[in-house]
Order: sequence, then C-alpha cells, then structure tokens
Amino acid sequence: MRSAELIAVGTELLLGEIVDTNSAYLARALADRGVDVYWSQRVGDNRGRITEAIDTARSRADLVLLCGGLGPTEDDLTREAIADAVGETPLVDAELERVLRERFGRLGRDMPNGNLKQAWLLPSAEALPNPAGTAPGWLVRTSFAGAPRLVAALPGPPRELTQMWNEQLVPRLAFPGAVFAAATLKTHGIGESHVGSALTGLTERANPSVATYAKRDGVHVRVAAKGASREAARAALEPVLREVERRLDGHVW
Amino acid sequence: MRSAELIAVGTELLLGEIVDTNSAYLARALADRGVDVYWSQRVGDNRGRITEAIDTARSRADLVLLCGGLGPTEDDLTREAIADAVGETPLVDAELERVLRERFGRLGRDMPNGNLKQAWLLPSAEALPNPAGTAPGWLVRTSFAGAPRLVAALPGPPRELTQMWNEQLVPRLAFPGAVFAAATLKTHGIGESHVGSALTGLTERANPSVATYAKRDGVHVRVAAKGASREAARAALEPVLREVERRLDGHVW
Repeated sequence: MRSAELIAVGTELLLGEIVDTNSAYLARALADRGVDVYWSQRVGDNRGRITEAIDTARSRADLVLLCGGLGPTEDDLTREAIADAVGETPLVDAELERVLRERFGRLGRDMPNGNLKQAWLLPSAEALPNPAGTAPGWLVRTSFAGAPRLVAALPGPPRELTQMWNEQLVPRLAFPGAVFAAATLKTHGIGESHVGSALTGLTERANPSVATYAKRDGVHVRVAAKGASREAARAALEPVLREVERRLDGHVW
Repeated sequence: MRSAELIAVGTELLLGEIVDTNSAYLARALADRGVDVYWSQRVGDNRGRITEAIDTARSRADLVLLCGGLGPTEDDLTREAIADAVGETPLVDAELERVLRERFGRLGRDMPNGNLKQAWLLPSAEALPNPAGTAPGWLVRTSFAGAPRLVAALPGPPRELTQMWNEQLVPRLAFPGAVFAAATLKTHGIGESHVGSALTGLTERANPSVATYAKRDGVHVRVAAKGASREAARAALEPVLREVERRLDGHVW
C-alpha cells in the first residue's frame, strides 16, 4: 500500500459546523508511515454522493479511508455506500450482533432496531472492534481494474477514531516501509519569492522535498525526506537542510 | 448560483501539518447565504491534480471556490491549474503589475521575477484586490455543458481569505436569496437510535431538515430551515422544532 485517499463523511462538515480534524489526524498518521495522500474529500450524508466519492477514490488510491457515518440512524449511510460501491449486500453478522446486544444489556437498555445495522458486515469485509462505541469499523478487501484495493471505515468521534486507527487498522495494513522525517527552517528579512529564487533546483526535488510557506513571522522552509527507516530519512534530510541554510545564510534564525 | 464546491490547495493539508479551517469558514459562510455545498476537496501542490479537482467540481457545482496556492513560488500552482481547466492563457495585467511593483516599492524592495505571476490574469477573469498581501484573487466566468459556472480563487492565509471573501467576492456573487436558520436541541437519557425512531418521518425531510448527532453530553438534534429571509427561515423552523420537542418530551434539556 503506497497511497491513500481520505473521505470525511458528514453534512455538518459541509455546513462548516465542525472543523475536519479527523482528516488532519489521519493524513499525518499516514505521512508518518510513508503513505502518500494526494487527495482528500468531504461529502455529506447522502448515499449516492458517498458512493461516488468512494468510486473516485478507489480509482486513484490503494487505500480508501472513510470516517464518519457509522451511527445507527437513517442519515448514517457509510456502510450502505460502501456496499453499493463494491457491489455486495451486507448481512447481519451473528458475532457482531451478540457483542452489540451484550453492550446494550450491560447498560440495562433494549437495543433499538436501528442499531442492527451496526452489526452488518459485507462478505469481503473484516469487522474492526470498537471498544469505545457501538459502531464497529470495516476493512474491505476489493480491487480496481485488477489492482488490489482496501476500503476502510472508521467512526467519526475523534476518540473512537484515533483508538481504532492505532489499535485495529494500523496492525492490519502493510505500510511501504518508508518513514518520514522533516524539519522547518524559519527565515526573516527575506520575501517568499526571494527565498524561492535562492532555492531554485531544490524545490523541484521530490525526495527530499523543499517547500516554502509565507507565515506571519517570516517565510518558513520545510525540508522533508522519506527513507526505509527514521535514521535513513534523517540522513537523507541532513545535506539538503545544510544546503538550504547555506543558500539562505544570514536569514535563518 | 445555488451550489458551490470547495477546493483547499496545499500539500501541507495532505500531510496533516495544518487543519483546514478555511474550508469550514467558507462552508459556513455559504450555508448562511443559502448556497448548498455537497462536496469539498483538498489537493496538494500539483498542477495536474488541481486541474482535475477543478474539472470534477465544475461538473457538479455552480461555483468552484479554491483557496491557497496563489503565492509567488513554483509550488504555488492554482493560477496555472485554473488556466488549464478553462483552456485559457494567463497574461500579465498591466494594472496588477503596477500595484504589485508599487507595493514592493513602498517596502523598499525590488520585486523578484517570481512575483510577476501574481499579476497574471486570464481573459475571462476579474482580479480581486488583496489589501493584506501580494496575491490578488481571481473570479473567472466560464461554463460547463452550456450552464454558467464561476471559478474563484482566494489566497490561503486566513486573514487575507476572510477579508477578501467578505469585501471582494460576496458583493460579486448572486446568492439564491435564501437564508438559513438552525437550532440544536440537546437530549439526555436516550440513545441515538431511540431518538432516530422517535423522529421517524421528520429526519427524511429536506426543509426543514432534522439530523441527530451522538455527542459526549448526549444526542443532539439539529433542525435547520431555509427561507427567503431570516424571518421566513425561522418561521419554517419553529413548528418542526416544537414537534421534535413534543416527540422527545422529558429528554430535551
């Protein structure tokens, strides 16, 4: 697995009522493990549109990672959309149903019928246990144009999402074995385009990559490298970092 | 203009280094003015991928609103991608160049060659002045399959973005004349699926819309209505809000 695309599901995101911190968390976690994310989407609680988002993502990334829309109500449609996208029919999984009913039992409450879809599973999906909530995640092994594809779904509440990412999904994924190292140099007294000119040749490189960001306290220069280990990534980073410092001599603080 | 799609540009977003607050700000501002946002994308600093994002967005929304990628350096590619998407060639606009050189002059600095692309304009684009920075925005009037389309680009720094949205873009856009009113009821002692069952029939409605969100302090029920005025939206909201309270009697606090 070398690339991933993120899909955050929820109309509240498209109304600007909440800021999409889940995508930033997952993007960073993927980058740290050497996975490239070229796209990230947000889509509302609409079955057809979530399906379209999955279709698009599946055409261009090895892993399609959805978050949100796994609740028990009729506007939680991520499971339905994944089923539509991969062309399978969800079935109630006996073990998931048992766990779910037990959970409600412990709380001394009857399980509403709506919750039963949280016990659904696709034939090609593996359930990801959710110790902190009622919505298990899914990991679906599918393909696109002959190439293997993974579609994974995690619940939207950040506490559940981060725990399930780390404990359930990470151990099941094959990361490219590349890790990421990065450093940011802050400059002062020099504009972004002067920095850009000074770094000509460096900013076109892919690894290590060099990028400039205009910030309130001056232009930041970020150098990032991928390597087979953290040590290798840091070793690749070092000479480029020194070269940037050399070229911006007197402006780095 | 009834619908908009947001595209936030910047590799740092896809690395999870910054949280995409611009999209949340613009989403909320559009919702407040009655514009539907069905999709939102994030894409890195890559000319081909930004162009693809614009193409996709243009096929499904009246307004394509980009933010970020308007800086002077070679990894700022939003202008190039818009030009590719609409099939036009940017020209240096004499007036924009004059303003830009004046700005550098006031700072007592020479303008680097890289900055010249911040004076570019497409034949069908209008420049949006940026009082807080060197990157003007663009408003491009184009079409898709015979239907009119707008493509607008705003700079990424939130201070520049919010000022230019309010002062430059809002006055140039024709909003649907619908405004949005919403209220959230908090419940306790009742699960999300019980709330869902109690609200059957209401949650399928589009206007006013009723949605449930499981939060740490209980299930929130959000009722939202669109109307020709704030008063009309509030008037449409009121009976549905009362109906939700009636059905959840004893659980709303």
